[in-house]
Amino acid sequence: MRQKYVLVTGGAGYIGSHTVLELLQTGYKIVVMDNLSNSNLEALRRVEILAGRPVHFFKGDITSTADLERVFSQYAFWAVIHFAAIKAVGESAQIPLDYYHNNVTGSLNLMRVMNQFKVKNLVFSSSATVYGEPEIVPVNETARLGPVTNPYGRTKLFVEEMVRDLCKSDPEWNVCLLRFFNPVGAHVSGMIGEHPQGIPNNLLPYVIQVLQGRLPHVCIYGDDYDTPDGTGVRDYIHVSDLATGHVAALRKLEKRPGCVAYNLGTGTGYSVKQIVNAMEKATKKKIPYKVVDRRPGDVATCTADASLANRELGWSPIRSMDEMCQDMWRWTHLNPQGYDGPLKATAAAVAGDHKSS
Amino acid sequence: MRQKYVLVTGGAGYIGSHTVLELLQTGYKIVVMDNLSNSNLEALRRVEILAGRPVHFFKGDITSTADLERVFSQYAFWAVIHFAAIKAVGESAQIPLDYYHNNVTGSLNLMRVMNQFKVKNLVFSSSATVYGEPEIVPVNETARLGPVTNPYGRTKLFVEEMVRDLCKSDPEWNVCLLRFFNPVGAHVSGMIGEHPQGIPNNLLPYVIQVLQGRLPHVCIYGDDYDTPDGTGVRDYIHVSDLATGHVAALRKLEKRPGCVAYNLGTGTGYSVKQIVNAMEKATKKKIPYKVVDRRPGDVATCTADASLANRELGWSPIRSMDEMCQDMWRWTHLNPQGYDGPLKATAAAVAGDHKSS
Repeated sequence: MRQKYVLVTGGAGYIGSHTVLELLQTGYKIVVMDNLSNSNLEALRRVEILAGRPVHFFKGDITSTADLERVFSQYAFWAVIHFAAIKAVGESAQIPLDYYHNNVTGSLNLMRVMNQFKVKNLVFSSSATVYGEPEIVPVNETARLGPVTNPYGRTKLFVEEMVRDLCKSDPEWNVCLLRFFNPVGAHVSGMIGEHPQGIPNNLLPYVIQVLQGRLPHVCIYGDDYDTPDGTGVRDYIHVSDLATGHVAALRKLEKRPGCVAYNLGTGTGYSVKQIVNAMEKATKKKIPYKVVDRRPGDVATCTADASLANRELGWSPIRSMDEMCQDMWRWTHLNPQGYDGPLKATAAAVAGDHKSS
Repeated sequence: MRQKYVLVTGGAGYIGSHTVLELLQTGYKIVVMDNLSNSNLEALRRVEILAGRPVHFFKGDITSTADLERVFSQYAFWAVIHFAAIKAVGESAQIPLDYYHNNVTGSLNLMRVMNQFKVKNLVFSSSATVYGEPEIVPVNETARLGPVTNPYGRTKLFVEEMVRDLCKSDPEWNVCLLRFFNPVGAHVSGMIGEHPQGIPNNLLPYVIQVLQGRLPHVCIYGDDYDTPDGTGVRDYIHVSDLATGHVAALRKLEKRPGCVAYNLGTGTGYSVKQIVNAMEKATKKKIPYKVVDRRPGDVATCTADASLANRELGWSPIRSMDEMCQDMWRWTHLNPQGYDGPLKATAAAVAGDHKSS
């Protein structure tokens, strides 16, 4: 398979760019297709520097069948890793048709063009959100799916269902559905990370903006949950561990597994207060917070049973919460405006260290 | 509203053509958009004869945003009745991507173009299949939705979910989700009905082909269900009653109800054996049958609680099982090849009677 390309949709985004780096370092040949609506070519430029190898880039949109047909005509692919999606939970309730169009129609277009070009190996970025409110935690892959509380989550669940129907109808298809828990952190070099966009939806990017003085305090949505300190407990996973998970899933496809789903999480839960403490420790700064009302749809605890990925993919996350915080802070410190500002000189040094290590 | 047009997607199909006839007779101005993939312009020609009024026809496909934009540019609509879909349950398991593309992407395209042209009133053809295996029968609209056992049913459920999200995000939208039970029968004139296509999926079209000598016998899938005679019990509704249900739903939209769902069924269940007997009575012919194994996913009984449609739409089905059978047989007798053959002379007479009555 190594002589053929892997297509990575959304490969210039946060998780995409870290995965492309890992894939390049593992020896895969990569084409990134991205519409750059919520991502930056600078990320791929830095990935190329870190990997010392080139990435082929194709600007295109999965909602355009013509774009997809062009990239599939141009390269011989053996597999696709499909990240491209819009992902703001709150926004999805405001403009649901855009979410369904991008995430569902887009994924369907991709699968239809893959079928047309007989490329039937897919790694799909799903989400722990497909479990809705899990009855048992840590949740494993056999848990009941849905009901999901927001349109974003429904886009992921619907695509999963479509994928299962597709695999049932055609045994040549192989799909790994990767259910991410809460991706955080940044590459250890500080050269790539999550580009900040407006007011963050997720806890850690929010904490970062408080640390930067852009927001006054962290909001803790409820401290009366049935958890050790009363605040919500979640399973955070380092984005570089997610990246290795994708490489493992790609290897799995070579064994023609049919349709399989894997949780990608650490299995360890951290409460909101623990996260705030960990970030205070990593940054040696005080982080002000306020406890406010619970948000509808939030559950007390959601953590992954990721033992299946461990057994079947030979994958385990190896980065600690301290590393997640340190790496996130390094990225922020070196790139206060994300990819929009200049990379601080020190980062190049870090990158140099990394390359030679 | 009466000076503006109503767009009927799939209006040349089985339920579509009967609804267009009813709409014309009620005084609505209609544009039909249909790709004619599973329908026939001859149906609309006959609808025009029966109604004595013209139908505007636009050949187009809901999977093409360009087609949709063209028809919306050409006419001023105030509402859309959306039938266009592919509907063979068995086939949906074989080519699920086609089903998701036509039914889900197609519906999404339609809603996006409606948004763009600020046409925010929709009647959507959903299906009783969204209930999966109902826990309580007769099933009412508050019942749990899903899990659905086939891709066709999932396309209907997914579009319903998208519609609910859309209405929540924008209070200007009004949608009636009409959950059809088992549509049968044909217009009393015998001029329009269900065009036969290959081996039928549904019981009554199957019985018809046995009566025509095209198939040797009716298959009864299990006679050991927990029902009076052991065969499955379903709620059959005359297609002309469905048509009046659509007119009632369209009127409801003028009251800006937001998103509402209505069962369209009679509330009366008939077993497979009862149906066979009713058709024998209507046709005075013997219908051979064989009892074979149960089909996976079939439930013992599924009937509608349609009291909500009665209360809120002022709608009730009025046609009996005898009329369903007689009308279906009249249509078949007069049009043994459906719309492909010539209309027998007697039909014109019936149509004449009907027009003058």
